[in-house]
Amino acid sequence: MAEEEVRLFRTWSSPFALRAIWALELKGVPYENIFENLSSKSQLLLQYNPVHGKVPVLVHNGRAVCESLVVVEYIDETWTQNPLLPEDPLERATARFWAKFGDDKVMQSIWDLVQKGREEQEAGLAQAIESLQPLEEILKGKKFFGGEKIGFLDIALGWLSNLVPVFHEITGLKLIEEERFPLLSAWMKDFSGFPTIRETLPPHDKLVTKFRAQLEALRAKSRSQQ
Amino acid sequence: MAEEEVRLFRTWSSPFALRAIWALELKGVPYENIFENLSSKSQLLLQYNPVHGKVPVLVHNGRAVCESLVVVEYIDETWTQNPLLPEDPLERATARFWAKFGDDKVMQSIWDLVQKGREEQEAGLAQAIESLQPLEEILKGKKFFGGEKIGFLDIALGWLSNLVPVFHEITGLKLIEEERFPLLSAWMKDFSGFPTIRETLPPHDKLVTKFRAQLEALRAKSRSQQ
Repeated sequence: MAEEEVRLFRTWSSPFALRAIWALELKGVPYENIFENLSSKSQLLLQYNPVHGKVPVLVHNGRAVCESLVVVEYIDETWTQNPLLPEDPLERATARFWAKFGDDKVMQSIWDLVQKGREEQEAGLAQAIESLQPLEEILKGKKFFGGEKIGFLDIALGWLSNLVPVFHEITGLKLIEEERFPLLSAWMKDFSGFPTIRETLPPHDKLVTKFRAQLEALRAKSRSQQ
Repeated sequence: MAEEEVRLFRTWSSPFALRAIWALELKGVPYENIFENLSSKSQLLLQYNPVHGKVPVLVHNGRAVCESLVVVEYIDETWTQNPLLPEDPLERATARFWAKFGDDKVMQSIWDLVQKGREEQEAGLAQAIESLQPLEEILKGKKFFGGEKIGFLDIALGWLSNLVPVFHEITGLKLIEEERFPLLSAWMKDFSGFPTIRETLPPHDKLVTKFRAQLEALRAKSRSQQ
């Protein structure tokens, strides 16, 4: 194969960009990290992702792919070693279904919870726990969502493994803990501790600082609008 | 291949279920329609889609697939004749990107617009038009989003072709008209007029009645909450 150029537009913390990074790393595809500052986006980022102006953008031999899960599928189809999606169409559909559920329901309910003031947190916590319940179920008998190996759904849900501990620390709430979610708790450790993944994770303390500031800013904005 | 059992849980009007129907019809896969009444869901629907309880659900030899675009990809991977997604990974990624954009941005902005009262419609119209602009761009030089043939993205955006005329009639607003969107307007005609598609479309007048009632109910509810 001719020399390939693979560049990844990312930030140091974006959980969506991490999906692309994990897919590339697990497949052993060499790539160049291009760090963006989203408060002052580069012309190149806006050129490659004019619709959303977001990271990640994967640029492969000059052609851009956007939207994190679309990028992961692109990587899986382009570099076929160490497949991320299963081969069987039904298992592929199941992984895609839960990946979408993770983005639409789980991410939404956890982010809602984190943003709530203390007095509303009880209802938010119940909702977030409810959205996590099916994930606990589908881990039964498996180490990873992909089975014995990290797969597409692990990558899609991987943000839980490094952001939930950050949210625990910021809010003081225990959302995923061993008693309620033994399998998810074990998966969080196995996933974030897997060497290829561990080496890519942003520092916990730096994430705590970043999200604390972001939540403060959101709350101040919401107070000023009331 | 052994006798296959393909059942599709749908309603008479669901634009999401139509995606699955179009994929099956374009591939010539025989299937059984199972009509659901969403105000009184069958036990089978809740059993096959316990997470969302929504249509479409495709049941293939007893195993269920949910989420309309996931169902379309499942159909494309299971019955490989007349492919819906392109073969090239970059073109596949592009189709998936715009399908997601269609659901997240276009559908949302048009539904927001339709729900607005007359006094807020101007801002809503501008936003919906903005979300449609990129679709007009990518139709340049093509009859369908899939090129000469109906493909995955046509199926994902197909709801525009039969619901936008319904919304035009209900709101009196002209959202997709020839002067502003010549290519999208032509595509709406070509897509909804394509024999396999045309035969599946719910009657326009019945849709007008249904959405008019739905919007009335939403407005009454919103008034009672003010």
